[in-house]
Amino acid sequence: MVLRDFTPPSRLLLGPGPSLVHPRVLHALSLPLLGHLDPVFLRLMDEIQTLLRGVFQTHNRFTIAVSGTGSAGMEASIVNLVEPGDAVIVGVNGVFGTRLAAVVERCGGKAVRVEAPWGTCIDPAAVEQALRRSGPVKAVAVVHAETSTGVWQPLDEIAGLCRRYDALFVVDAVTSLGGVPVEVDRLGIDVCYSGTQKCLSCPPGLAPFTMSERALAAAKQRRIPCQSWYLDMALIAEYWAEGTRAYHHTAPVSMLYALREALRLVEEEGLPARFARHRLNSDALLAGLEALGLLPLPAVGRRLPMLNCVTVPPHIPEAEVRAQLLAEYGIEIGGGLGPLKGTVWRIGLMGESAAEAPVLTLLNALEALFTRYGWLTTPGRALQAASGVYGQANS
Amino acid sequence: MVLRDFTPPSRLLLGPGPSLVHPRVLHALSLPLLGHLDPVFLRLMDEIQTLLRGVFQTHNRFTIAVSGTGSAGMEASIVNLVEPGDAVIVGVNGVFGTRLAAVVERCGGKAVRVEAPWGTCIDPAAVEQALRRSGPVKAVAVVHAETSTGVWQPLDEIAGLCRRYDALFVVDAVTSLGGVPVEVDRLGIDVCYSGTQKCLSCPPGLAPFTMSERALAAAKQRRIPCQSWYLDMALIAEYWAEGTRAYHHTAPVSMLYALREALRLVEEEGLPARFARHRLNSDALLAGLEALGLLPLPAVGRRLPMLNCVTVPPHIPEAEVRAQLLAEYGIEIGGGLGPLKGTVWRIGLMGESAAEAPVLTLLNALEALFTRYGWLTTPGRALQAASGVYGQANS
Repeated sequence: MVLRDFTPPSRLLLGPGPSLVHPRVLHALSLPLLGHLDPVFLRLMDEIQTLLRGVFQTHNRFTIAVSGTGSAGMEASIVNLVEPGDAVIVGVNGVFGTRLAAVVERCGGKAVRVEAPWGTCIDPAAVEQALRRSGPVKAVAVVHAETSTGVWQPLDEIAGLCRRYDALFVVDAVTSLGGVPVEVDRLGIDVCYSGTQKCLSCPPGLAPFTMSERALAAAKQRRIPCQSWYLDMALIAEYWAEGTRAYHHTAPVSMLYALREALRLVEEEGLPARFARHRLNSDALLAGLEALGLLPLPAVGRRLPMLNCVTVPPHIPEAEVRAQLLAEYGIEIGGGLGPLKGTVWRIGLMGESAAEAPVLTLLNALEALFTRYGWLTTPGRALQAASGVYGQANS
Repeated sequence: MVLRDFTPPSRLLLGPGPSLVHPRVLHALSLPLLGHLDPVFLRLMDEIQTLLRGVFQTHNRFTIAVSGTGSAGMEASIVNLVEPGDAVIVGVNGVFGTRLAAVVERCGGKAVRVEAPWGTCIDPAAVEQALRRSGPVKAVAVVHAETSTGVWQPLDEIAGLCRRYDALFVVDAVTSLGGVPVEVDRLGIDVCYSGTQKCLSCPPGLAPFTMSERALAAAKQRRIPCQSWYLDMALIAEYWAEGTRAYHHTAPVSMLYALREALRLVEEEGLPARFARHRLNSDALLAGLEALGLLPLPAVGRRLPMLNCVTVPPHIPEAEVRAQLLAEYGIEIGGGLGPLKGTVWRIGLMGESAAEAPVLTLLNALEALFTRYGWLTTPGRALQAASGVYGQANS
């Protein structure tokens, strides 16, 4: 097979991740490698830990990047805590809650599912009921930002329940970290994991991960060893978290260069400004989409700014339009998963993608397509609505 | 924390990996991202599969890159095949065989260890004895290139035993793939995994992985689900291997760009030329090291060309010299692990690092240091010996 040079076509990445990556991060990826035990590389790991603590808003010593994607972060969080027979309450209102429950069961745990319709939040009262009924519960696990539905799960009440019932609190922040507050210490979250390719705007391949001292103690005091060697945090602690820097596996050096640079960009912007930027661009996008007849699936106040899930009216062939957006305009947006397949679009405004130009470019393309197919009688309104939101913010 | 730009110091990477990375691969890493379900990216995945089949010398449909490092490849190979109670014969003669056995046990399997002293090969007769004694055996797992000792394990006889006793044959080719032949189809290897940062000269972060139809069938017909969701090949098959390209996790896009380019370089060179290059440079290095009084740990015929493990005489403080090589000359070599700590050096000549300039540069630095400390009375011999090997090859 003779292959040519690979030249990716230009893409505006507005799907559920990966998001657009800053040129500084792409440059960091291309730097020559260091050994994974080189003193200079170990210093870079220290810096990443410090920067990650900032974005997780935690002082947890055990704050690292798992050498796998966000799903590896999910598996790491469960596989270290859950032993056979342990009950774990899992909020299930989308793909990722469903997956969490499956991972609990693959660890031999008993997943107590607290369900809610896709597009709605998990009700803390239902979590409390499950806590009261289930006997001792090892952990409560919920998805902060359900990427499959665009729902923003409030965490305060569930955090309080975890303290009251002495359960470890596990939070999936794959899509939320860096886009909305993820307050690990204030909420007393015990294990929190994320992915790099969402609001941190780093390529996929690493899972930011933080663990409280009591969660780490639980992981170290297991009755039986963690069933995963690769994700065993008691072992990984020696390489990443406890200063000994003992070899466990070969860290993904280039990806860690990229993560450092992506986190540096987050720090330069500052979390409050970054959160406000995600909010503003989502508001503008949603105003424009509303003018096109596309309304958010989640209720007001429950909508994630970085993952805008809107219902596509039945007369619009959503898959065809998405394919056309990609082929004609180079714009990627996401379709629905599971029960939402064919009925929603998931439009990501994450990290570098959360900006005025992507929002206006997408709305303009949608207006053009909708007009072409006769779904829109008065074009221009979507851009106008978005522009109004930006104008108000600037005034 | 205000961090400066990260500028890695120049390093000649001659440790156990990562190896030097070709500028074309570094450039590929820096290309803008595509979505993990973008048709153009899915085509790139197809190409990687084809290229990996070439380097694994297999027609296995299920030939992919696992989204984790080589250790994730190891875990994936075991966690998919082994169910609680399954017996697995594991060759243990170094760190990675030891790890394989540990992973088998974490999967609830019964690891039947066939041991050999570090620095020697696993004896096929001992494997046969274990097969005869153990009752039904699910798999036999051996390390082709034991990175901790530099031992090259012959596979032919053990392959024959696996067929005779109807056991699956699992081979760790983390360090061998791309440097010496890894003949998956000819030997009937059922599961073979590698890492990208060794003889493929791609950054660490992916594990090339191939699985025979009968291994895949075993993974799909398990009595209980694979205990890892992240590494469940029955699920991953739908994304990578079976044409449906159904979402499982977000693939590490940039790393896969890099792997495609690294594999393209392998294909351009051709496997026979690549193997010969690894051989020649190892011969030259060993000739030079012998002149310095550093002799290989493994016996003749058992020495890996890409991982040269030599005994350091007791009068040489090996850790200090290694640290000096790094600090003064920017050269990384590896020390010993486990029982070999403090007594050996592991010098990697992998992929891009397997070349005349790195060999001569290292020998020159060692000669200078050895002369400085009075361990060498007649300097120049190491370079002369290496040069002689190169001269012979060119004549």
